[in-house]
Amino acid sequence: MLYSKLFGKTSKTSKQYDTKNAALLEQAGFVRQLMAGVYTYLPLGLRVLNKIAAIVRQGMNEVDGQEILMPILHPADIWKQSGGWDNVDVLFKLKSRADKDYALGQSEEEVVTPLIKDLVTSYKDLPIKPYQIHWKYRDELRAKSGIMRGREFLMKDMYGWFKDQNQFDVFYEQIKGKYLDIYKKVGLTAKVTEASGGAFSKKISYEFMVLTDAGEDNILYCEDCDYCVNQEIAKDKGSSCPKCKNKSLKPAKASEVGNIFDLGNKYQESFNLSFLDQDGKKQLGVMGCYGLGISRLMGVIVEKYNDEKGIIWPEIVAPYQFHLLHIGKDENVIAKANALYKQLLDRNIEIMYDDRDISAGEKLADSDLIGIPTRILISAKTLLQDSVEIKKRDEEKSSLIKISDFLKTI
Amino acid sequence: MLYSKLFGKTSKTSKQYDTKNAALLEQAGFVRQLMAGVYTYLPLGLRVLNKIAAIVRQGMNEVDGQEILMPILHPADIWKQSGGWDNVDVLFKLKSRADKDYALGQSEEEVVTPLIKDLVTSYKDLPIKPYQIHWKYRDELRAKSGIMRGREFLMKDMYGWFKDQNQFDVFYEQIKGKYLDIYKKVGLTAKVTEASGGAFSKKISYEFMVLTDAGEDNILYCEDCDYCVNQEIAKDKGSSCPKCKNKSLKPAKASEVGNIFDLGNKYQESFNLSFLDQDGKKQLGVMGCYGLGISRLMGVIVEKYNDEKGIIWPEIVAPYQFHLLHIGKDENVIAKANALYKQLLDRNIEIMYDDRDISAGEKLADSDLIGIPTRILISAKTLLQDSVEIKKRDEEKSSLIKISDFLKTI
Repeated sequence: MLYSKLFGKTSKTSKQYDTKNAALLEQAGFVRQLMAGVYTYLPLGLRVLNKIAAIVRQGMNEVDGQEILMPILHPADIWKQSGGWDNVDVLFKLKSRADKDYALGQSEEEVVTPLIKDLVTSYKDLPIKPYQIHWKYRDELRAKSGIMRGREFLMKDMYGWFKDQNQFDVFYEQIKGKYLDIYKKVGLTAKVTEASGGAFSKKISYEFMVLTDAGEDNILYCEDCDYCVNQEIAKDKGSSCPKCKNKSLKPAKASEVGNIFDLGNKYQESFNLSFLDQDGKKQLGVMGCYGLGISRLMGVIVEKYNDEKGIIWPEIVAPYQFHLLHIGKDENVIAKANALYKQLLDRNIEIMYDDRDISAGEKLADSDLIGIPTRILISAKTLLQDSVEIKKRDEEKSSLIKISDFLKTI
Repeated sequence: MLYSKLFGKTSKTSKQYDTKNAALLEQAGFVRQLMAGVYTYLPLGLRVLNKIAAIVRQGMNEVDGQEILMPILHPADIWKQSGGWDNVDVLFKLKSRADKDYALGQSEEEVVTPLIKDLVTSYKDLPIKPYQIHWKYRDELRAKSGIMRGREFLMKDMYGWFKDQNQFDVFYEQIKGKYLDIYKKVGLTAKVTEASGGAFSKKISYEFMVLTDAGEDNILYCEDCDYCVNQEIAKDKGSSCPKCKNKSLKPAKASEVGNIFDLGNKYQESFNLSFLDQDGKKQLGVMGCYGLGISRLMGVIVEKYNDEKGIIWPEIVAPYQFHLLHIGKDENVIAKANALYKQLLDRNIEIMYDDRDISAGEKLADSDLIGIPTRILISAKTLLQDSVEIKKRDEEKSSLIKISDFLKTI
């Protein structure tokens, strides 16, 4: 991509931001806020979002999830049937011209349960785990923290049905592990945290928490073992770790990047869903839901990977892998940079080329702000040695490398 | 994919459908209706939708479009600013708990124009053409025709800004050609049809029409040349073609699969947007919008490609390329089918394998209903000759081919 042509460049604003992700993603040209909690993803931002989504999708397919796409616009009756119409305070409600009531999906149990009822009849077809990656809506009184707490946000939501608690539990452990893998892949360490089942369930649920000052959850965690609990349900806040007994629990702020729930048979009862067991008897089975916030994950990655100069994208989610720029107005330098850009494009390398005729200082500052992992700099000086200067965004040192050698290593 | 595990199989329903796409897509397990005009895409349906979207995306990138993603949830003020709040009758409106007014995106001029104002200042940056592929909402009084006329539908919408009418016109011709290419790729012949600019513009707009009885538009077209006009704006309905003068115009039913508009400077005026020209003077430039209905296109493809047995997917949008099935309970047959499935998977071939233990008649009927382009059948009889029977969905004849030869040709 030629930076001169890119829709959405860096900008300096005097706007006040409540979090680093809000500030950096706007200033670096990844997103634009339409209103609190609602964002447009510009080309750079959409590339990152799609990369995170692809990693999550692959993970869900690896645990035999089946991708579907459910509606955002819901008829009111399914929400009345589950009780959510009156009980879910963040549910957006609307009326059509013809005076029909609708809701906007904030979770899809009400859609997917009747679908299962329609499509699956026998225990033999269980477990079954449809999932989607789609936009969700929450009527938040206070949307804040950039893309971390939105009224509109992209989420992966999987729903699972199991013939019994044992089959449910086996998958519960499997998906816990898969979630931790996914966070690790994108550069985050998440803690599996005991939490309340919330409006969904009386059972304990698990939240996946990443420690960050921008988070809005308060957790207690053990520094010795992996025990972690949401302060909302912690009983003895001053006591030692109930798991390893070694240390007292430490408080921290954290951001929830996923949650998994044991929903028992709540929705089977609401929607009169049952499965036939081996004896032809109706059984309710056990249902679970497994959420993972994709736009939020993007925000948390930025909270974690930045310095005073800008974002430092982990390679796996970076919008491009290389950021090429030339310094100076020397025609030969520009020609060499143009040629290298073309060579890298021909090799299908993900490259952004800052071809603008602006000062070296501005270009270097922009490249640090945007945070592409590897910077390739060409100047009259580097060309004296037929070289480019390579610098990793997360390292201080740079190194000269012959252009011919550089092309070989790629 | 093992058909036995697939979420969403074929079903026989006694439901009445108004169109073939509504009937076939539900019966073959591609979609499920949640309410009139609102559908869930099951795994097979989502694969087709994604393939169409990918073709459209590639086309838009080829004309220098830049993909972004704009919100669905809009603040009311932008719609009030453009006048759409009171004038667009299909606009879904809602209120938050905090009594704020919102609208659901049915088109995104109101979002993208302020974005351009924020991000683009100079004529030198024109033309610029952001686009998105995203869900749209229309408060239709009567949603009908399956996925062809939805309250919720997937659309590609591109918006372009040009420094003058000439620059606009050059791109208008370019995108017309690109649209025709895209329709051709997915197996459709579209007619460029003169139509009114509608609520958007007083100028003539162009609609892309595919002749189909399920369509809800009435057009007049010339059988000799490419002239085509929407009956709504046709002046002399009985007269000869105004372009070639050879024939009288023929009426037909058609479905609109795209439209392009010259919006002039309506939105620049509403949002006080201007660009600086070479002399530093403010100029409004010319704006266009270019829509292409992706979920509708899927419906139209089904209307066009079907027979009394089911759907006949064009290869380029088919959910899978091969439909493997075995006939009979012979263990050797099953083992050979399993082995072939594995070999094809290893080669990254898109294959659906009907591994169910049901009658040959049911399997063959299901494979015709689903409409995957090439059927591979293994039976005791074909194995006598170490062969499989290959049949194209759109041909009557089948042929035996040695398994080893078949693997070589793939």
